[in-house]
Amino acid sequence: MKTQVAIVGAGPAGLLLSHLLHLQGIESVVIETRSRADIEATIRAGVLEQGTMDILNESGVGERMRTIGALHHGVELSFDGKRHRIDLLDLTGKAITVYPQHEVIKDLVAARLAAQGQILVEVSDVALHGVETDQPSVTFTHRGEEARIDADFIIGADGYHGVSRASMPGQDQRRDFQRIYPFGWFGILVESSPSSDELIYAQHDRGFALVSTRSPTVQRLYFQCDPKDHVDNWSDDRIWSELHARLENNDGWKVNEGRIFQKGIIAMRSFVSTPMQAGRLFLAGDSAHIVPPTGAKGMNLAVGDVKLLARGFEQYYKQGKDGLLAGYTEHALKRIWRAEYFSWTMTRLLHTFEGATPFEREMQRAELANIVSSRAMATALAENYVGDF
Amino acid sequence: MKTQVAIVGAGPAGLLLSHLLHLQGIESVVIETRSRADIEATIRAGVLEQGTMDILNESGVGERMRTIGALHHGVELSFDGKRHRIDLLDLTGKAITVYPQHEVIKDLVAARLAAQGQILVEVSDVALHGVETDQPSVTFTHRGEEARIDADFIIGADGYHGVSRASMPGQDQRRDFQRIYPFGWFGILVESSPSSDELIYAQHDRGFALVSTRSPTVQRLYFQCDPKDHVDNWSDDRIWSELHARLENNDGWKVNEGRIFQKGIIAMRSFVSTPMQAGRLFLAGDSAHIVPPTGAKGMNLAVGDVKLLARGFEQYYKQGKDGLLAGYTEHALKRIWRAEYFSWTMTRLLHTFEGATPFEREMQRAELANIVSSRAMATALAENYVGDF
Repeated sequence: MKTQVAIVGAGPAGLLLSHLLHLQGIESVVIETRSRADIEATIRAGVLEQGTMDILNESGVGERMRTIGALHHGVELSFDGKRHRIDLLDLTGKAITVYPQHEVIKDLVAARLAAQGQILVEVSDVALHGVETDQPSVTFTHRGEEARIDADFIIGADGYHGVSRASMPGQDQRRDFQRIYPFGWFGILVESSPSSDELIYAQHDRGFALVSTRSPTVQRLYFQCDPKDHVDNWSDDRIWSELHARLENNDGWKVNEGRIFQKGIIAMRSFVSTPMQAGRLFLAGDSAHIVPPTGAKGMNLAVGDVKLLARGFEQYYKQGKDGLLAGYTEHALKRIWRAEYFSWTMTRLLHTFEGATPFEREMQRAELANIVSSRAMATALAENYVGDF
Repeated sequence: MKTQVAIVGAGPAGLLLSHLLHLQGIESVVIETRSRADIEATIRAGVLEQGTMDILNESGVGERMRTIGALHHGVELSFDGKRHRIDLLDLTGKAITVYPQHEVIKDLVAARLAAQGQILVEVSDVALHGVETDQPSVTFTHRGEEARIDADFIIGADGYHGVSRASMPGQDQRRDFQRIYPFGWFGILVESSPSSDELIYAQHDRGFALVSTRSPTVQRLYFQCDPKDHVDNWSDDRIWSELHARLENNDGWKVNEGRIFQKGIIAMRSFVSTPMQAGRLFLAGDSAHIVPPTGAKGMNLAVGDVKLLARGFEQYYKQGKDGLLAGYTEHALKRIWRAEYFSWTMTRLLHTFEGATPFEREMQRAELANIVSSRAMATALAENYVGDF
């Protein structure tokens, strides 16, 4: 099989890139180890920055997002027994949309299939070849047969555990940056109406908690936990007791309870791997960088990478120049490091760290107090949150 | 001897309080273990916030500051081979004055002596008594004689190592917050014209460095060092070599060399002790809190405490109410924690930490890059720096 751009991974990065390339008349094939049902059901991030909303709308896949997604003009910070609103719209002129990643995936899969785009799912034994030549290829097994795609370029959009990053030439010269956090997030899906119109990020002595909403009838709630804990240790009663303790103050507001129909523990990691390109292979999204979910940046960073790659391929195929592709890593890393910094800051600020000294705990409190008392500090948080950089 | 307010310690806090009380017709006596020559020669902080300038001017001791001090409208941040200006005036409408603490001391001593104020120097064996009664007293040895001051109140303005904090009743219920940093500042005084019109805060892989100026002919330069190092290990050549390496880029700007006439190593500590009052004893300045010098907040925090105490005593003696004095700790701590947070942030941001991971070093770079690219983040830094909170 021949194509212009072979894309490994049908997550938001791979599918959006395939969609954007198609709009420019550039051919691509996407391969994916999981099934379509799997990728369309994987619960991940849910906050879309203004720039992510814009690219989905401009490229014609924003209709369900506009209908089902919830536009939020602010978020709340809860600490020291009070909630404080950060007015994103007032501070930055921008907003966010809460719309789950798997819904974005559904929209992109539908758009690709409607345009006869090729997405090969449930492939295995993926291997990349000749990425330092002008004729790279991807081999894999598909429906029991060995298959091969010859392409001009390969995009590694197969996530942190995918083969693409490991297939980069010059492994001994790669620089990886990483922080593994000593806590995880316990996430639940709940049948109930929303507890809050906007997201609530809560810092509490018992640990962080987050209130968000998936739909008018489904809440997504999280709380900080031991990353080695097991969901079996958490009865529904214990979960509700913890959420009430961390989120409620004396103002009468309560977390809405409901049937918990999914429980899971998410590990927390900051990770950047450089360079993001070698020869004809480019990494995009989680294959090159991971953020802890506290800053709500994961999918937005993947979209940021894809925007740069789409422009790079447009320049390459329409003008015969490779300047944008050559500068991809350098350009992408500016945005990535800013988002890594913001995600690390939010994580540092809102979680309880075992072994933290009383001074360190006061520094968290002082930073939160300053954010809600200084318009400049609130604006800095807001512009990072909406991705206005 | 009888007075209304007995003040232990003739640093900026003690002397300014004595001066402000005098302007309100409230009597005080200041005692100090060191000599007048010593306190007028001790090299300490040199950056006055707008609010500190204002109170010195309003209380009539600002003339030499206005003449000799240097008004600065900005500071520079140096990192990654470039310098970036933070325009304090543009961002906050406020400025700072570089005017050494020992000059402030001289001005205050002169004002107190001109008004027949009592400053007893070179006292020893200071002890506080009856601070939980309405008749507290201070005993000490002065000129070989035992002496005693009976007062309505005692102010402990005798610094981190003074007797006042240790004399607070209820030691088992005190809460101390502390961070001792794993580095110090090597400070030098140099005979030379200024290298820069404004302060330069430099982050460098070799460690932090700071360029400041004491007068048109004297520079004050600092660089991060091992706090256990000795000045004898640092020849002039080695010092200049280190300063050139940390401060200079490829833009032609150079640190002016000159005769080094003082060398010293400063330890770095964050410290807050609460409560700041018990009965008739109130702590002010370094006796209750220490900041690392990176945020240039030390003397300004002392002045902040003194402003609150002066208002409290005015209310007490003129209106017979003790509300402001009763609320002193709570009120003072708001400003103190914000300054502690800022000083910790600047320290964390600008120093090299042994054992820092590559990810942590990138977080420093990303934060600095964001500060100089985001007006909101620059404003947050600037308003903390000028004390606009």
